[in-house]
Amino acid sequence: MTERVTRSFESQNMMKTLGATIHKVEKGKVTIIAPILPSTLQQHGYAHAGLTFSIGDSAAGYSALTMMNDDQEVMTAEIKINLLAPVDGEILTAEGKVLKNGKRLVVVSSEIHSLKDRKKNLVAIMQGTMIPVALKT
Amino acid sequence: MTERVTRSFESQNMMKTLGATIHKVEKGKVTIIAPILPSTLQQHGYAHAGLTFSIGDSAAGYSALTMMNDDQEVMTAEIKINLLAPVDGEILTAEGKVLKNGKRLVVVSSEIHSLKDRKKNLVAIMQGTMIPVALKT
Amino acid sequence: MTERVTRSFESQNMMKTLGATIHKVEKGKVTIIAPILPSTLQQHGYAHAGLTFSIGDSAAGYSALTMMNDDQEVMTAEIKINLLAPVDGEILTAEGKVLKNGKRLVVVSSEIHSLKDRKKNLVAIMQGTMIPVALKT
Amino acid sequence: MTERVTRSFESQNMMKTLGATIHKVEKGKVTIIAPILPSTLQQHGYAHAGLTFSIGDSAAGYSALTMMNDDQEVMTAEIKINLLAPVDGEILTAEGKVLKNGKRLVVVSSEIHSLKDRKKNLVAIMQGTMIPVALKT
Repeated sequence: MTERVTRSFESQNMMKTLGATIHKVEKGKVTIIAPILPSTLQQHGYAHAGLTFSIGDSAAGYSALTMMNDDQEVMTAEIKINLLAPVDGEILTAEGKVLKNGKRLVVVSSEIHSLKDRKKNLVAIMQGTMIPVALKT
Repeated sequence: MTERVTRSFESQNMMKTLGATIHKVEKGKVTIIAPILPSTLQQHGYAHAGLTFSIGDSAAGYSALTMMNDDQEVMTAEIKINLLAPVDGEILTAEGKVLKNGKRLVVVSSEIHSLKDRKKNLVAIMQGTMIPVALKT
Repeated sequence: MTERVTRSFESQNMMKTLGATIHKVEKGKVTIIAPILPSTLQQHGYAHAGLTFSIGDSAAGYSALTMMNDDQEVMTAEIKINLLAPVDGEILTAEGKVLKNGKRLVVVSSEIHSLKDRKKNLVAIMQGTMIPVALKT
Repeated sequence: MTERVTRSFESQNMMKTLGATIHKVEKGKVTIIAPILPSTLQQHGYAHAGLTFSIGDSAAGYSALTMMNDDQEVMTAEIKINLLAPVDGEILTAEGKVLKNGKRLVVVSSEIHSLKDRKKNLVAIMQGTMIPVALKT
């Protein structure tokens, strides 16, 4: 399971572009970490919502993938993000979680924390839907 | 108005990282364009949802900014994306629009199209809330 | 198509409880009307968000139903509402629309207007996902 | 706090129409209960999404109200619901919770369970934004 998630993650160029890495893989729960790089800031010097979203969405998607058969992949059908605070600091962590593993839809959530001066701060929450798709071979 | 949006956009490192540019600025409506680069793909060779989200969110945010006073900025409070199709092709366009310009909340939408072999395809829609914030000086 | 939507609608007790009626049925587009009754107000004398949501969700769902085969029904997988203004007046109209009619997911939107002193006012917008389900027989 | 929430709740006609009652009020957390009545069903004999939404939204709103000053009220700015399963059984409970109590925006969530044959089942989750408004006097 961990190997499969890691392999898929490593083939995501976007994750490389953002500097993100897989931190932890459990059944139904995946954590992703990304540094807050100069290249992913917005105009006020905070992390861009696109960074927060990207790792939150990926963590949620991979948490769904841990529930799939080997011949299935997942795609995001929809997801919503509430941004709770401007995001600064050194590192972001996104913890994705499966809330309901349906046959046709997998409902997921993601919590994104920033780490600043060793203090963890909840900066965004996400709620969405992943759909299983047949793996292209 | 156009100058202000352009200046703000150009100070967003994330937009540079994604290769995005401002295409058009009107009162309450802003269009952003981004190429689908190798660096922003996901594991199946499609554009990463994070790319689609990032330019859709930015287009929506800048459409809100066109309604603000000079001493105000905007931030995303929340936004939701429905992904309608896997995203391939050469280019993405995101058209952000103000639906309701309230004093405390600005409700916005964004439509993202892909361009592939000269054919335009609606790939995602977004609906969200921007909040005006006092400009830091 | 119209008959099918009407028949289904009339078997929805909740719609009766709210006083709602079908106003118009077109392929991919359904309009529902509801009076703002004393029984559906919230504590400030405005229409309850639950009323706005209920008819907006139903209009969106029935717009999806117009695209289905006779042996299919639809259910709401998820939907989001942005409330643009406190809702008063005499009547609410909800216009649901299909944005993407996929085989597995139907992406829909809904616009809800109030009518007050003959003036139409956009009070809420919704964006969501319906899923086709096999009709129980 | 409890008294204030109860008083406000009792002046909500919509809650009476749905048969809903306040079950528990804590700082930042409110639980609402509603029976699944014949009058709030949809066409397949399940509880209408409008019922689930209405009590989930109210529980979230009242959880926000427990954080407000006496001269403030709250209104729903936006909220999203993911429906995890068709809702049947005897009773619905909605537990609303404050996730972030900001000065301008209060981010909330709600979990809705059904009770059927003494078994509790998570049927919907919600994530949204409440805004404080000055109490009209």
